[in-house]
Amino acid sequence: MSSLFDIKGYLAIKRAQVDEALNRYMLQSEGELAGHIEAMRYSLFAGGKRVRPILCVAAAESVRHDKTVAGDSLLAAACALECIHTYSLIHDDLPAMDNDDLRRGRPTNHRMYGEAGAILAGDGLLTFAFDLLSRADYADSKPDLQLKVIEIISRAAGPLGMVGGQAMDLDSEGKEIPFSVLRSIHSRKTGALITASVQSGAVLGGATAEQLDSLTVYGEQIGLAFQIVDDLLNVQGTTEELGKAAGSDALRKKATYPAFFGVDRTKKMAAESVEHALAALTSFDHRADPLRELAGYIIHRRR
Amino acid sequence: MSSLFDIKGYLAIKRAQVDEALNRYMLQSEGELAGHIEAMRYSLFAGGKRVRPILCVAAAESVRHDKTVAGDSLLAAACALECIHTYSLIHDDLPAMDNDDLRRGRPTNHRMYGEAGAILAGDGLLTFAFDLLSRADYADSKPDLQLKVIEIISRAAGPLGMVGGQAMDLDSEGKEIPFSVLRSIHSRKTGALITASVQSGAVLGGATAEQLDSLTVYGEQIGLAFQIVDDLLNVQGTTEELGKAAGSDALRKKATYPAFFGVDRTKKMAAESVEHALAALTSFDHRADPLRELAGYIIHRRR
Repeated sequence: MSSLFDIKGYLAIKRAQVDEALNRYMLQSEGELAGHIEAMRYSLFAGGKRVRPILCVAAAESVRHDKTVAGDSLLAAACALECIHTYSLIHDDLPAMDNDDLRRGRPTNHRMYGEAGAILAGDGLLTFAFDLLSRADYADSKPDLQLKVIEIISRAAGPLGMVGGQAMDLDSEGKEIPFSVLRSIHSRKTGALITASVQSGAVLGGATAEQLDSLTVYGEQIGLAFQIVDDLLNVQGTTEELGKAAGSDALRKKATYPAFFGVDRTKKMAAESVEHALAALTSFDHRADPLRELAGYIIHRRR
Repeated sequence: MSSLFDIKGYLAIKRAQVDEALNRYMLQSEGELAGHIEAMRYSLFAGGKRVRPILCVAAAESVRHDKTVAGDSLLAAACALECIHTYSLIHDDLPAMDNDDLRRGRPTNHRMYGEAGAILAGDGLLTFAFDLLSRADYADSKPDLQLKVIEIISRAAGPLGMVGGQAMDLDSEGKEIPFSVLRSIHSRKTGALITASVQSGAVLGGATAEQLDSLTVYGEQIGLAFQIVDDLLNVQGTTEELGKAAGSDALRKKATYPAFFGVDRTKKMAAESVEHALAALTSFDHRADPLRELAGYIIHRRR
């Protein structure tokens, strides 16, 4: 791992690039649809870390031979991933689901726009993601690669992935579940879209089948680490740090890694996942340094 | 219009074909995701008329030169359209939206699976539609055409189309709105996905640009007729016929065509839309007979 690589600077640059693209691609809040678009924009520009878009772009850069800036279809895919992530947060926060009032330190979408408005903002963002992914007018548009990316993302976000994981999570609240079920929930609910983010970038960056396999392992392992750290932060973080209610998992009697293994062993498991992620990148050159540093960033983040 | 064409027989055959394909493509309700999948299947197999899938298949047949049965990617697109339509019904029925207890004579999804379960069933169906649309393993898979169809459908179902129309509809409840706004709501909320159904079939059937333009006009006009008839049925139908509460629009003080123009003039407007739809098919041969008969079916339906 290059100790000279400036991960903070890299994240700041990429985040600005993603924010600019999101603002450009996302509909403007005007005309007869202004209210609906404003509700989508409210959550889309609520200070998200843009982890999934940055993973997508970094994965593409890890396999690309040219040094050109990110192409339009890559940036659009990155934005689509953030739209899908944002929709999932809006729906997860709903009164019928987790019933959260705060997200990233601000009122949740339904506290601002009402339940119906929030449901539709989520529906709109999810559908708009596939609009972004399917456009044929990008300068670097490649229909076969775009279709492959839609297949990857829709599978990861759908009933077998993120939505199914959330359904299992709700079903398991207040119940004793074995660790295998918790792992399945985590893998579907968080891991699948993070893995898909890495895979999408890899595909659009022109990865070989072998490179795609390695990057898939990398994605799965950091996805796992990401969720384990989420569990830890919920136990240990303060509400101020998290931007949402701390300790809410315990209150809801949700199964978590710390509840199964205790804090110390859970920390070790997160570190092991990061090690596995790094090991998957052994055959990659310096172009994978951002992915290597991102693995470390995920485990040391505070929210 | 061929008076010899048996529209009832055609509809029965196509509906069976769509139902078979939906059952085959849709996930089976088993394993740890059984509850979530059952919730999706409950609404997907609730006796829908399959209008959008049949329009999709009929549009493809209206331009195709060969006489082969519908290809895999066409049937999958037809199923995807039904998944999107079904998701929209589930979310529209939610307590935070129209708060309906009955749909097609059966308890609505949230009455069966709870609010959270219904929100997720909708999210799952919407995302699964894009999974179906993007698969590369259909025998007749054509990435460029599939991508074009995803672009058409995601645009029609998204913030500028169906979701946006529903947002405008909710905003306008109990308010005096001009007719131009009602027309925009109808066009987005119902017309867009019906038009997209026709366009998707046309694209997958290999329509020329000119044919696609004509079929787009056809789709827009029957979409309009469909919504006008919906408004009429809500005024005139019985709860038994509709499978949902009759007169609910008036109770909610919703703007409708009959409220603007009275029943007689509204009926004339629906008939005019059907005429415009038929006129758009003038240059099409007998292969467009199903589309011609479908236009008449839409205006004479009882629910």
